[in-house]
Amino acid sequence: MTEAPLVGILGGMGPAATAAFYVRLVEVTPASRDQDHPKVVMWADPSVPDRTAALLHGGESIVPWLERGLLRLSDAGATFVVSPCNTAHVWLPDVARDVGVELLSIVDTAVDAALEEVGSGGTVGVLGTHATIASAIYQDGLAARGLTPVVPDADHQAGLVRAIYAVKAGGDQLGEAGAIVREVCRSLVARGVGLVLNACTEISLVLDGVEQIVPVVDSSDALARATVDRVQGRA
Amino acid sequence: MTEAPLVGILGGMGPAATAAFYVRLVEVTPASRDQDHPKVVMWADPSVPDRTAALLHGGESIVPWLERGLLRLSDAGATFVVSPCNTAHVWLPDVARDVGVELLSIVDTAVDAALEEVGSGGTVGVLGTHATIASAIYQDGLAARGLTPVVPDADHQAGLVRAIYAVKAGGDQLGEAGAIVREVCRSLVARGVGLVLNACTEISLVLDGVEQIVPVVDSSDALARATVDRVQGRA
Repeated sequence: MTEAPLVGILGGMGPAATAAFYVRLVEVTPASRDQDHPKVVMWADPSVPDRTAALLHGGESIVPWLERGLLRLSDAGATFVVSPCNTAHVWLPDVARDVGVELLSIVDTAVDAALEEVGSGGTVGVLGTHATIASAIYQDGLAARGLTPVVPDADHQAGLVRAIYAVKAGGDQLGEAGAIVREVCRSLVARGVGLVLNACTEISLVLDGVEQIVPVVDSSDALARATVDRVQGRA
Repeated sequence: MTEAPLVGILGGMGPAATAAFYVRLVEVTPASRDQDHPKVVMWADPSVPDRTAALLHGGESIVPWLERGLLRLSDAGATFVVSPCNTAHVWLPDVARDVGVELLSIVDTAVDAALEEVGSGGTVGVLGTHATIASAIYQDGLAARGLTPVVPDADHQAGLVRAIYAVKAGGDQLGEAGAIVREVCRSLVARGVGLVLNACTEISLVLDGVEQIVPVVDSSDALARATVDRVQGRA
């Protein structure tokens, strides 16, 4: 049996975003047959408590869930771990270090992709959950690379969060969620943004039409590409 | 932490079909929030040797790969296992029994769905790889439930296999693959088939337009629905 890297995917937060990430990982892999694709082990426990509630509203800590998932992936032999949930990255780097497993961070890979796209000194809008925005993990990451982060104003941010939970609910609310995302992007462009960094893997599912408003770097897509680069020894 | 069943998914054969199955599993789950979705652990090793070569052309046995995957899923705590690869089911029931893990069979669930759709005594066309067809796992399953199986003639079967490997290769050949699948379905209808049972999870990705030719039961869809029923205690 092969010694190729084994990709651990810590998913389930949420499940639709996780499934879409795996689809994207397969799509961006240069492959002409099954055997060219990465080996994957996935732990997807959607019973993890709500991440935003955990950070902002005194909800149950998700750290034990993250530890458990990372341990399962590590026990299964994962060479490194990725997680297609931005909000979880408020805690994940610390938990991964405690557990002793390598994390390929969605924040780092998305910020790198944004820098490559917009160039040094650019102004970047950030779409994310309340918790992702409140934690400032993206604003800090962008600023550390010389980029200027801009977050939606309070009204647009509230609309964006409604859109995120509509995507999680599935069904017939996806069109409305997409319309909200486009409206938030227009408001960011009006404030001088040259690129939008989508830092929520639920929003990744309703980005259709946003490219006509503003260039977008999608964190789920950036993580999928960085995962393939890591597997194939290019990063 | 919760005591809900943990679904083990033995995937990777191929990866696109596995990703599509997980998307479908999320879609068919009645849920309004992340926490309503099943807990999933997935082992997807696309380096498994080609299944058709293993059965028909003296290729390397895939049994050690199946054993390894089932053991990883069992070690991770899977309550039962599903695999969105029909050809692997030539071996999987035996391997699962040897390993001591419960298998929810795609063959059983798809044949049950076909019976429900076409009714007792119906004539059912089967789409699958050379190995799935040669092993007769579907023909036997349909006959055991009083249905009459019909498989494509040799020329159409050869075209179908080209379509399957085109899907595995991805890219711009999907349209052509879909056209082949529709042509095979027309040939089956001409031979008296009242329903097509798609017994290949790659073909699941190119079924658009087939419903205009003949009713279809898709094995990947049937397995996703049966998985949700099992998780929610309805089966």
